Amino acid sequence: MENDTNTLRRLKTIEGHLRGVIRMVEEDAYCIDVIRQIQAVEAALNKVSSQILESHLNSCVITAIKGDDPKERERVLKEITEVFEMSTKV
Amino acid sequence: MENDTNTLRRLKTIEGHLRGVIRMVEEDAYCIDVIRQIQAVEAALNKVSSQILESHLNSCVITAIKGDDPKERERVLKEITEVFEMSTKV
Amino acid sequence: MENDTNTLRRLKTIEGHLRGVIRMVEEDAYCIDVIRQIQAVEAALNKVSSQILESHLNSCVITAIKGDDPKERERVLKEITEVFEMSTKV
Amino acid sequence: MENDTNTLRRLKTIEGHLRGVIRMVEEDAYCIDVIRQIQAVEAALNKVSSQILESHLNSCVITAIKGDDPKERERVLKEITEVFEMSTKV
Repeated sequence: MENDTNTLRRLKTIEGHLRGVIRMVEEDAYCIDVIRQIQAVEAALNKVSSQILESHLNSCVITAIKGDDPKERERVLKEITEVFEMSTKV
Repeated sequence: MENDTNTLRRLKTIEGHLRGVIRMVEEDAYCIDVIRQIQAVEAALNKVSSQILESHLNSCVITAIKGDDPKERERVLKEITEVFEMSTKV
Repeated sequence: MENDTNTLRRLKTIEGHLRGVIRMVEEDAYCIDVIRQIQAVEAALNKVSSQILESHLNSCVITAIKGDDPKERERVLKEITEVFEMSTKV
Repeated sequence: MENDTNTLRRLKTIEGHLRGVIRMVEEDAYCIDVIRQIQAVEAALNKVSSQILESHLNSCVITAIKGDDPKERERVLKEITEVFEMSTKV
């Protein structure tokens, strides 16, 4: 994966957010507020995943499909279906 | 989309499942049992979506990427990111 | 579950929506459009589940918690955690 | 929220997992592997949320429902529906 500055920045922000959630638990914050913050972390992670997928489609996937190796093409397309299917479960 | 017999069969099974849920509500079934059946319907719909995406990747997407129209290629890849992002929300 | 007119009406609307999706597949609609409609059906099902849970909390759950049977109370609360956990997976 | 040692321990493990994801991006790991690890982080977060909800139901919610304040009871039940509804979206 190209060392995406934007992806890194977002992930580090999410790490900070998660540390905030840990602090909330340490300080006995209200359960529902903790759950809401965890859900906000997950929404941010979903956003990052979508960005990574977008950049993957526009690089590796195009290369694989234009390439001469049918096995590689099949593999790359199968992976996309797999992460899509998993995304409906998390 | 190719008129996928398998997709159609699955969707009709899900329709039958959903009618069963409606009957449960009409017959005053226990709330939690109804919610569980709705969740089962959703899991089945996720499965169908993944299948449709897989067949789409192996037809339209390959054609678009191998084709000469960069706009079309861009459009097709953008759609995949969009349904992926939406899949994390439903 | 109280025979909720509103829940029934929503579920029947969703059934109509799902039949529309089946028709789309029969008529070879574009894959991505089908996936989007399936996602819309799922969003609507999520909404119905939330409504059913809300009415369940305000009836059965209150009764169980105010009641004298600790086993029943435990069971009712456990079910809520279970449907919550499942909801993160579908 | 009771300062739950188990919840804290899980969240700190997830924080470590997320730092691992950041390292993967820094080291140009394969996009799909990064997405899969992000999905694993989300699955772990869902698990923690369920645990927190379970402990909340067995403490605050019981207290509120047995209490004398109908407004408080209503508020507490409304929150559960809200986090349930949100859980279907992240």
